[in-house]
Amino acid sequence: MIIGRILGTIVSTQKDERLQGKKLLIVKPINLDGSDQNGYVVAVDTVGAGFHEKVMVVGGSSARMAEGNKDCPVDSAIIGVIDTIDFTT
Amino acid sequence: MIIGRILGTIVSTQKDERLQGKKLLIVKPINLDGSDQNGYVVAVDTVGAGFHEKVMVVGGSSARMAEGNKDCPVDSAIIGVIDTIDFTT
Amino acid sequence: MIIGRILGTIVSTQKDERLQGKKLLIVKPINLDGSDQNGYVVAVDTVGAGFHEKVMVVGGSSARMAEGNKDCPVDSAIIGVIDTIDFTT
Amino acid sequence: MIIGRILGTIVSTQKDERLQGKKLLIVKPINLDGSDQNGYVVAVDTVGAGFHEKVMVVGGSSARMAEGNKDCPVDSAIIGVIDTIDFTT
Amino acid sequence: MIIGRILGTIVSTQKDERLQGKKLLIVKPINLDGSDQNGYVVAVDTVGAGFHEKVMVVGGSSARMAEGNKDCPVDSAIIGVIDTIDFTT
Repeated sequence: MIIGRILGTIVSTQKDERLQGKKLLIVKPINLDGSDQNGYVVAVDTVGAGFHEKVMVVGGSSARMAEGNKDCPVDSAIIGVIDTIDFTT
Repeated sequence: MIIGRILGTIVSTQKDERLQGKKLLIVKPINLDGSDQNGYVVAVDTVGAGFHEKVMVVGGSSARMAEGNKDCPVDSAIIGVIDTIDFTT
Repeated sequence: MIIGRILGTIVSTQKDERLQGKKLLIVKPINLDGSDQNGYVVAVDTVGAGFHEKVMVVGGSSARMAEGNKDCPVDSAIIGVIDTIDFTT
Repeated sequence: MIIGRILGTIVSTQKDERLQGKKLLIVKPINLDGSDQNGYVVAVDTVGAGFHEKVMVVGGSSARMAEGNKDCPVDSAIIGVIDTIDFTT
Repeated sequence: MIIGRILGTIVSTQKDERLQGKKLLIVKPINLDGSDQNGYVVAVDTVGAGFHEKVMVVGGSSARMAEGNKDCPVDSAIIGVIDTIDFTT
């Protein structure tokens, strides 16, 4: 899994039926020190994460194991809001 | 998922039987500000996306969860046309 | 999927039993303008592609959905010979 | 699989139900000579690895094959503590 | 699949039960001309490959399709010893 922070949302009307009602968030991957990495990922929120919160994102087929994503065409899901990151290099 | 814009199409006659009738589009991944990223991906259109529209693309095994792709040899599918991208860095 | 051109073949006698009889081709990924990308991939040919032809390659678990690859230990398969690539940047 | 060393832990209260009780560790990928690579990965510990130990990490859907991860939304798991790395370049 | 050469072995006592008895080899990915690429991968040997031999490596969920890897937490497997690589750029 990676760590990211929520930057915004995607609005899409014309989409796969199994995406109806799903919240599509834009997540910026971050480093352990909180600085931004390059790029972004669009992930389905499954835990009610809020704007700019630090979240944990799962990718690949395991994104379909997140709550409510079974058999959905999604490859990225937010599965946790992060309280603290404890590390020593 | 990633965001991209549609650049064109691939025509292939000699192909896997389960690709018959599928629209194979060339998608250019883009950044949140609309600028192009490097590279491209060939994705199956499953939502009737139009030329140069911004779309959402799912990759990996989840591309087979998109409408009509069950058990197909595809690793990339267009699953939504994007109306708006709202974000604050 | 990606686009590539066929560079050659791999010969392997001591291999997984489910690879017996499969044609293992070396594919060079190419850009939309036909120029080479870095790297290469070894893919199972499932459509009878010829030397130096432009082909479409599927990766990951979906390579096992290509004709004849069910339950095989392959992560890359050629699934189409490309006739034309039509695009406008 | 890759080799990494454990840097720390992630604490998350608001998370997917199937992550309850799982130990989420921050792993730094390393080179064969023991030097750090860029980046990090958050992995579920399934073997009781200790702080700063060298571990083996599996990614993708196979992370769900590790002990206790069946059907969990995880894409990275620690599956072994490394005793020795023997190699000659 | 990729091509690599075997550099060495990993010894791990404290590991996932389904890895018991499996040979964990360190593989260096190589270019078509035989030169080394960056990085390495730890792969399960399933064909009895020898030290410094050129091998074919499969990644992702398909590594579990290799002989003896069913339901194992492995994302990389050696599935063939390479006799010859024939190519023309």
